[in-house]
Amino acid sequence: MSYRAPISDILFAMTHEAGLAEGLSDGVYTDLGDGFAEATLLEAGKFAENILAPLNRLGDKEPAKLDAGRVKTTPGWPAAYKQWTAGGWNAITAPLEYGGMGLPALLNTACIEIWNAANMAFSLCPLLTLGAIEAAHSHASEALKSRYLAKLVSGEWTGTMNLTEPQAGSDLGALRTKAERQADGAYKIFGSKIFITYGEHDLAENIIHFVLARLPDAPAGTRGISLFLVPKFLVESDGSLGARNDVHCVSLEHKLGIHGSPTCTMVYGEHGGATAYLVGEQHKGLACMFTMMNNARLNVGVQGVAIAERAFQQALSYAKERRQGRAAGDAGEAMSVILRHPDVRRMLMTMKALTAAARAICLMTANAIDRSHRAKDAGECKAAAERASLLTPVAKAFSTDIGSEVASLGIQVHGGMGYIEETGAAQFLRDARIASIYEGTNGIQAIDLVHRKLGLSGGGAVKREIDDMRKVLEALQKTNAESFGEMAPRLIEAVASLERATAFMLNALQTHPEDALAGATPYLRLFAYARGGSALARGALAAHRLASDGATDPALAARIATARFFAENIASGAGGLELSVVHGAGSVNAGAFALAI
Amino acid sequence: MSYRAPISDILFAMTHEAGLAEGLSDGVYTDLGDGFAEATLLEAGKFAENILAPLNRLGDKEPAKLDAGRVKTTPGWPAAYKQWTAGGWNAITAPLEYGGMGLPALLNTACIEIWNAANMAFSLCPLLTLGAIEAAHSHASEALKSRYLAKLVSGEWTGTMNLTEPQAGSDLGALRTKAERQADGAYKIFGSKIFITYGEHDLAENIIHFVLARLPDAPAGTRGISLFLVPKFLVESDGSLGARNDVHCVSLEHKLGIHGSPTCTMVYGEHGGATAYLVGEQHKGLACMFTMMNNARLNVGVQGVAIAERAFQQALSYAKERRQGRAAGDAGEAMSVILRHPDVRRMLMTMKALTAAARAICLMTANAIDRSHRAKDAGECKAAAERASLLTPVAKAFSTDIGSEVASLGIQVHGGMGYIEETGAAQFLRDARIASIYEGTNGIQAIDLVHRKLGLSGGGAVKREIDDMRKVLEALQKTNAESFGEMAPRLIEAVASLERATAFMLNALQTHPEDALAGATPYLRLFAYARGGSALARGALAAHRLASDGATDPALAARIATARFFAENIASGAGGLELSVVHGAGSVNAGAFALAI
Repeated sequence: MSYRAPISDILFAMTHEAGLAEGLSDGVYTDLGDGFAEATLLEAGKFAENILAPLNRLGDKEPAKLDAGRVKTTPGWPAAYKQWTAGGWNAITAPLEYGGMGLPALLNTACIEIWNAANMAFSLCPLLTLGAIEAAHSHASEALKSRYLAKLVSGEWTGTMNLTEPQAGSDLGALRTKAERQADGAYKIFGSKIFITYGEHDLAENIIHFVLARLPDAPAGTRGISLFLVPKFLVESDGSLGARNDVHCVSLEHKLGIHGSPTCTMVYGEHGGATAYLVGEQHKGLACMFTMMNNARLNVGVQGVAIAERAFQQALSYAKERRQGRAAGDAGEAMSVILRHPDVRRMLMTMKALTAAARAICLMTANAIDRSHRAKDAGECKAAAERASLLTPVAKAFSTDIGSEVASLGIQVHGGMGYIEETGAAQFLRDARIASIYEGTNGIQAIDLVHRKLGLSGGGAVKREIDDMRKVLEALQKTNAESFGEMAPRLIEAVASLERATAFMLNALQTHPEDALAGATPYLRLFAYARGGSALARGALAAHRLASDGATDPALAARIATARFFAENIASGAGGLELSVVHGAGSVNAGAFALAI
Repeated sequence: MSYRAPISDILFAMTHEAGLAEGLSDGVYTDLGDGFAEATLLEAGKFAENILAPLNRLGDKEPAKLDAGRVKTTPGWPAAYKQWTAGGWNAITAPLEYGGMGLPALLNTACIEIWNAANMAFSLCPLLTLGAIEAAHSHASEALKSRYLAKLVSGEWTGTMNLTEPQAGSDLGALRTKAERQADGAYKIFGSKIFITYGEHDLAENIIHFVLARLPDAPAGTRGISLFLVPKFLVESDGSLGARNDVHCVSLEHKLGIHGSPTCTMVYGEHGGATAYLVGEQHKGLACMFTMMNNARLNVGVQGVAIAERAFQQALSYAKERRQGRAAGDAGEAMSVILRHPDVRRMLMTMKALTAAARAICLMTANAIDRSHRAKDAGECKAAAERASLLTPVAKAFSTDIGSEVASLGIQVHGGMGYIEETGAAQFLRDARIASIYEGTNGIQAIDLVHRKLGLSGGGAVKREIDDMRKVLEALQKTNAESFGEMAPRLIEAVASLERATAFMLNALQTHPEDALAGATPYLRLFAYARGGSALARGALAAHRLASDGATDPALAARIATARFFAENIASGAGGLELSVVHGAGSVNAGAFALAI
């Protein structure tokens, strides 16, 4: 089936779970008022449904191809990309002074879900450009900005991130690509980069590479890395395209999924050196990259939500049509639609609830990013920035993990048909699987959460987050409608588990840092259960209030049922995760010799 | 890296976890004594490592192809199949009177793991033949047996199972393929079957199809299905091959994985009818099919174990070579191997522990099958048969689910390289994914466990199983070595959760069968945690005893560490699953309208 953008679900989550309602009333989101958010999402949905989604299977079957150094993308993609830029979709959050709309991350995050659900391999290209815009805007000189930013904002040119080398993946300190200063103030780059998404393609007339490299006098490790801008075609002072730069795609990877997205090995400087321009200060390249990586991590998390939503839609549609067996309580001789079977319903509700929780976490993170820039007082800005930092690894890792889990369940709902490529369910799993790996593996995210984020403000940031969950749960207990089932007790237990596990972690970081690292992954999952569950509970409370006030939308009851399902069947796993965090490190360490023999 | 058959792990699990030691001492396994089991496994391992494993990637890259009705398998496969039959591997459990070796299921199950780890797509072919041998031996007339069985046993001919039709998957009652009686006592078959594994190929000179079809006077539904034997080439009375029968492969599926295994759409009777022979009584075909399906389900479970083992081996090998970052405690400036990072170690231990638990459950199930035939008194045979019935859905569903989970973790350990097809890690996930679907989806297994198996002997069978777990745990508590960590408390909690969830299920089956169905999947997982955890604990006790008696094999300590990891980090999830079983049904039901809108 084709994709339908779940506008009302997204809008509800933005409004009642992720802070849009508060932002509208306290002035942080003045630019989203008067139905502007909904109108934008509706337009985005049309574009995704009509232009991007129909090209998704084709991208899988007819991947981008390399021929004599040029990459030809899937038929139809260049035309779709033209429509993308013409629609102005590239510029939602981009700075006003370079032609962007300067709109909040919350709105863009919602749109990014919609693009990626429709066609993840295609939408990766603008996602990379977004990162490039951010890197340039935050760190590049005025001269570079004025020459490159407007075209990146419009999408006429696209951007890439060049980090990985064969020996330098998670550990960027090991990278070897070299940069040499030139007399004119520019640089020459020499080296190879792998896994470069959209490193070469035919969607746009120029490609602006952001490349990490070492200057000759650079200290070893991560403190000796600088960031450079390397255009595919040099840009003249009048903005016209000049000579072809010495950067070339030499091969494409043959990947499990996202076939439509060319993953390039890029070679710099085989013919005298690739002309490059320093971005930010020398040796401070990693810090520049991290600015942009934080948002990129959120956006990759959103890809997980996107594929989960898409897989859910297709599985639900199949379950409403496919007939097998007779469900208890169904009259007559005919076979029942499989949606009537409780086990199928459990799979679908698991898909729906995981997707909703991950969406809420991603949108909350975007809201924190917005507040970190837009809040009225400096204290609130700082707290919001810390909140964004804390939630980002959770948004990235949990959402991408559930992206694969939900896609796998989607295959299962289809039975044998799910294993046949033509059905499309398998593609979702193949596509989703990368998101747990790139932009920092989910293991790195878990370590980031525990090692760098729990300590923010001496543990104050995570304490504020848990307090926020508790506030929701107090309201939940007070209301405690019958339709809530055991939502309150399950979530209270989950947050209590998170609180104890957090105390354990904060202590372990001081006393046994190995134990903190050993429990990082289950801790992140526990965090997501508590945070996601209480966010959905917040939505359920709003839905209950609206229904009590007379609203008749059946989606309101569905939202309560989804929140309840999450609490009773997913957040219910919190106690086990706590055990693993608090008592599991010993056996991870004991595993050292079990694995060594 | 290439596959190495884990002979000592398998032999240890057979001996100390799955009843080989008892069977050797009480005479059930006289034919496995004097090192025969180990010698057989070593030979099987050589064949798998040297002949099957090197063809695995090729099968993925150069799948079986259909050309003018004939299927050409991957280059090298026909020769490998010849070596397979020449080695006598097809005949391990087959009846002596038809040239088989009549050896126990326990040994064959161990071999099946080894074949499938080396090359799952190849090994599917003999797996299907095994089912065909069983169906023929248990239900066919003497005339059919004498004409067909010896060649199936030797592997000169292969077998298929023809069940599925487009409208009849999990619900075989809906099948429409017709059989018409002929004057000579034979039948003609008309109809189409889909998803027929090795329905056509060039590995053997004849293919014997076992086909479910309806006779004209058949009652509707599952009580009107008969089983037929349909040879690709008719067989003359002297055993020579006669005319080509009217059964043809018209297309192959394009699947997510197991590319080397041709999945055929078979058309019967387009040219006058396919000659067929009734197997068993008319209208009793489903019962005949179920005899063979129970063992086939165990064998598919073993495929899950196999791929998990293979994925683990490759990930571990990568983690021992790949260097990134510096682990705490590592001296010097060099990067550490990633195995030194606690989060990577957690992934690898999760892979190892899940694989070990699933292997133990599969081997236990095989042991129960053996005892159901070989035990000295009728009472023990009956109890063992019930035990095999009870454990089979757990072996199938848990092992195949963890097969995909472990393969997915294997990708994750590889980081970006895991997403590149050439690495091979992605193929394991693609291959593994089918096993949760075919031979009865895992949802069907969970329903089978709850609906048909919990009630065996009025709940007596499951009670005996739980009592057996408790016995292990008592010994565990008594010994309670320091290396056991929190193995005992975690497993005691897990078994208590299983006991309460079982009581809930037995009651719900009487009072609210919908609620039992709603919780079937988490119940099966809980069952596997308790059963797998206590089986590994049994192994850990044996390892501890052996080490205390002076054995110095470092693998003994590794087995204890693996059992401990399983208890502390996996079985620790039992409480959450219990909550989901006992308190989760309401929200599954509430999901009905959430999904309907």
